[in-house]
Amino acid sequence: MGMEFDLIAMVRERTRVPRDDVDVGMGDDGAVLRAPAGQDIVVALDTMVEGVHFLSGTAAADLGWKALAVNLSDLAAMGATPAWALLALTLRRADAAFVQGLADGFASLARQHQVALVGGDTTSGPLSISVAVHGFVPPGGALLRSGARIGDLVLVTGTLGDAIAGLYALRDPPRDTPERAALRKVLIDRLVRPVPRVAAGIALRGLASACIDVSDGLLGDLGHICEASGVGAELDAALLPRSRELRELHGESESLEFALSGGDNYELCFTVAPENLEQVLADLGRVGCGVTWIGRIVAGDGVRVRDAHGGWLTPDMRSWEHFA
Amino acid sequence: MGMEFDLIAMVRERTRVPRDDVDVGMGDDGAVLRAPAGQDIVVALDTMVEGVHFLSGTAAADLGWKALAVNLSDLAAMGATPAWALLALTLRRADAAFVQGLADGFASLARQHQVALVGGDTTSGPLSISVAVHGFVPPGGALLRSGARIGDLVLVTGTLGDAIAGLYALRDPPRDTPERAALRKVLIDRLVRPVPRVAAGIALRGLASACIDVSDGLLGDLGHICEASGVGAELDAALLPRSRELRELHGESESLEFALSGGDNYELCFTVAPENLEQVLADLGRVGCGVTWIGRIVAGDGVRVRDAHGGWLTPDMRSWEHFA
Repeated sequence: MGMEFDLIAMVRERTRVPRDDVDVGMGDDGAVLRAPAGQDIVVALDTMVEGVHFLSGTAAADLGWKALAVNLSDLAAMGATPAWALLALTLRRADAAFVQGLADGFASLARQHQVALVGGDTTSGPLSISVAVHGFVPPGGALLRSGARIGDLVLVTGTLGDAIAGLYALRDPPRDTPERAALRKVLIDRLVRPVPRVAAGIALRGLASACIDVSDGLLGDLGHICEASGVGAELDAALLPRSRELRELHGESESLEFALSGGDNYELCFTVAPENLEQVLADLGRVGCGVTWIGRIVAGDGVRVRDAHGGWLTPDMRSWEHFA
Repeated sequence: MGMEFDLIAMVRERTRVPRDDVDVGMGDDGAVLRAPAGQDIVVALDTMVEGVHFLSGTAAADLGWKALAVNLSDLAAMGATPAWALLALTLRRADAAFVQGLADGFASLARQHQVALVGGDTTSGPLSISVAVHGFVPPGGALLRSGARIGDLVLVTGTLGDAIAGLYALRDPPRDTPERAALRKVLIDRLVRPVPRVAAGIALRGLASACIDVSDGLLGDLGHICEASGVGAELDAALLPRSRELRELHGESESLEFALSGGDNYELCFTVAPENLEQVLADLGRVGCGVTWIGRIVAGDGVRVRDAHGGWLTPDMRSWEHFA
């Protein structure tokens, strides 16, 4: 397309992050890169589509940030150190201001993690953004979904359920007191500017037995760990970490539902052998990442949640999947 | 999405290509890969959107083939040996037969080049397909757009203009004799099942001074080489390689326009110092790739085309960009 070249030049200009391991960046048929000797490469590719992953009218800078964030979150879940990204942008029309905003949002997160944008493709069509990211881990050091063992503890970083509450607030903005509006703003930020847990993922190398990011919701994602590891999990509802904002705005019961099933939250859910717990708490504390023990890996399959009275919360938690 | 897991499992099943350098393939948050020691990695990412890069109703298997082919063509243009791919698929609905067909088409080309599909993402939305590919080149051995020097010869593999003729035939199928319909079928195949020039690209390592694939049309793509190299190019219209099918169906003048400006053709256009010409012809002959000398790199900028009478074909060839 005629538009392609100028837009790519603009994106390149606004996202410059120097890295020694990039021989040829954007502007050729492909990028030429040098992985560090003896490291494994971790690669992920995710697409965000207008009306599916974000609302029409979302600010371009927020989209640029989030398109990279969700991919860096995948690297974090593998324990990888981010390095390179490629961006494929599909736009209804060549809108320079939009691309500029998107590049700036992308770059503001990329610079935090020294991620070089090494390739790009712009094309016309319904708005969507695909990003591929590459990171490094020591050989055999990647955190997988398949390593959870019976008796391991289940932990999660940060707080759960904020992003889905932010989505409801965006979709159907209530008339609110300034105090409540400020609380909602926090939840909306969690949705549109998720912070990938990169440092936490790296800190968990060699310590977590399994790890995943909470993109589909805790129950679904911990379910993936259970399935890949051939185990089950039991959670304690009372332990699920929920933000003050979420509790104040949505109350106990709804905030619990959000915490269990709300997607798009990009915290790490991981499992740890009990003897590694102390080290994990120390290491995550050192990188400033809050972490909460929420349950235990058990024999069997699937995820069960104990309520405050010691019973099981519901026989089929998956019925909440429509929140994801 | 609920559909995601089953579809990815199906794709994984149908695209299996064993590679020793894949530690963890599809099914985790990211793939874990080992690049060969001392090699550079070449990465490209391209998206195909329904109604823009392919007609609605295109067979799923053709889409799967082509989504990989256009990316392998980028690797070919860099002289890289293909290794790994990731596939992000956006579908209006979870259509298992469609995904199956797409995976089969993808796999039939992937197997030819031992390309392992190591990651995937399916999402709902307007039909589009993003593929990221990775390949290897010896250090510093990648073919770039920027190396053309004054006096170099300009060459192209295969024949030009076939794919755009195939697009016209598909869009507006004429009532034809069986003989002409058979000719059209050849051109349509060039559009829907492009064959990336992987072996040719590898053969050109250390020989071509610059290289690009003809995705936007010869004038535009050779123009990219000229711009990146700070040179101009002069082509001879009479030398442009055109297939028998194209000439018979479209005549001299139109086939020339198609050859100059028709995109989606995925041949390699490259430049060679005169002293390397013999070696290039021998090496491309050895991998069974036809090649034609079409012009020369000159001082200045832009691409000019000499007509049969020694004049210049047109002052502004870029007006043909609408064919691309």
